[in-house]
Amino acid sequence: MTYCVGLRLNRGLVMMSDTRTNAGVDNISIFKKMFTWETVGERSVTLMTAGNLATTQALISLLNERAKPADERGAPSILEAPSMFQVARLVGATLREVIADQAGETGQEADSPFSATLILGGQIRGSDPRLFMIYPEGNFVEASEDTPFFQIGEAKYGKPILVRAYDPAMTFEDAVKLLMVSFDSTIKANLSVGPPLDLHLYEADSFRNGRVQRIEKDDPFFEMISSSWGEALREAFQRLPAYSLDD
Amino acid sequence: MTYCVGLRLNRGLVMMSDTRTNAGVDNISIFKKMFTWETVGERSVTLMTAGNLATTQALISLLNERAKPADERGAPSILEAPSMFQVARLVGATLREVIADQAGETGQEADSPFSATLILGGQIRGSDPRLFMIYPEGNFVEASEDTPFFQIGEAKYGKPILVRAYDPAMTFEDAVKLLMVSFDSTIKANLSVGPPLDLHLYEADSFRNGRVQRIEKDDPFFEMISSSWGEALREAFQRLPAYSLDD
Repeated sequence: MTYCVGLRLNRGLVMMSDTRTNAGVDNISIFKKMFTWETVGERSVTLMTAGNLATTQALISLLNERAKPADERGAPSILEAPSMFQVARLVGATLREVIADQAGETGQEADSPFSATLILGGQIRGSDPRLFMIYPEGNFVEASEDTPFFQIGEAKYGKPILVRAYDPAMTFEDAVKLLMVSFDSTIKANLSVGPPLDLHLYEADSFRNGRVQRIEKDDPFFEMISSSWGEALREAFQRLPAYSLDD
Repeated sequence: MTYCVGLRLNRGLVMMSDTRTNAGVDNISIFKKMFTWETVGERSVTLMTAGNLATTQALISLLNERAKPADERGAPSILEAPSMFQVARLVGATLREVIADQAGETGQEADSPFSATLILGGQIRGSDPRLFMIYPEGNFVEASEDTPFFQIGEAKYGKPILVRAYDPAMTFEDAVKLLMVSFDSTIKANLSVGPPLDLHLYEADSFRNGRVQRIEKDDPFFEMISSSWGEALREAFQRLPAYSLDD
């Protein structure tokens, strides 16, 4: 499993991903699920992946190969596509290609499907920051004011707090705090989601990658959130009016 | 989908279930998923069901038929089994029988499996109150001090608050409040879980059904919880120390 969240804020884009991959509970590894590209002054692109690790690694390798100037295929790369919409189309098409390729390679049914779901965010000069969710079929949807964030992977445990506390006008600091609470609830409930966490804060109209940070398991702030949030929840619960059985 | 929770408290058992069943989003009905039996002064038994409605209805009908004194099969009924463990075995065996029967009746694969998962709680004179989760295979597990509650159906959204705020020493009033918060988070996130809610408060060593109540959608307390919990969560979030990006 996996947990990744992309938030669209007025101030920019906030992306967070976990790093745990597992094949069964006895085979756990750490792999990066967040990838960034940039052309300073012109574009910044971030991709987060959930799904079959062989699929997502092949996808990232292909995207990287094709982004090299030496590649003479003619098709626009992730660094050349003229808009984030075209980047999303390109990533979706590449994902479909990888899945078809891997499914064709095997003569038998695999235990886990060659599938992946992606969150793509970024900005290219001439347009606002945009955030997409890309499905295994290669099609995609874009975040809007009504649905200003996307989750992939184990989304349920961490969703209630996102729904309640998200605010498009929030600061990056508050957004990081919010994501840490959401990730903490998920990590506590699902063994297949785990730290360290990767974070990218993309500032709107900066047209370059922002702060990219790895939050380790023993990060003091994350540890504080992890230990304080339970107490804060209990207090909030106790402050609600009491139910009365007399009627 | 469905959402049912059974809590084992020092004071007794608290059971809550929703009532929504659906076949697609355009075919929604209200069906009871909580069933109680009692022999006043000797036993109280509550069963909550999640899964295929035809399966769970057939299960309840069979259990009821066999609990009638007129039935001369010889096998002990839910009202005659000498312990809650034996009641759980009986319910599990009946469930397996119904599933095998329904799977055998159809010549083709059904869209949804003839499957069900159950929560069984109750007390029979001579033993403490006990709480079980029964699987479609007919086997079951019992709640313990380490795992003092069970959820069936759409369990993920409502689990974080249960984990954080459950306390075996809590009052029935607090337990109802806790379950309402847990159900509210689930109902807000999953269209296939919906009110009204059914509630049974079984008081330990009362050996009769306790308060059985239907909580309607417009129940004033439930409406208050539904509108206040979001605010309480946001406040709890804001009271957490702020994250700082300067380092």
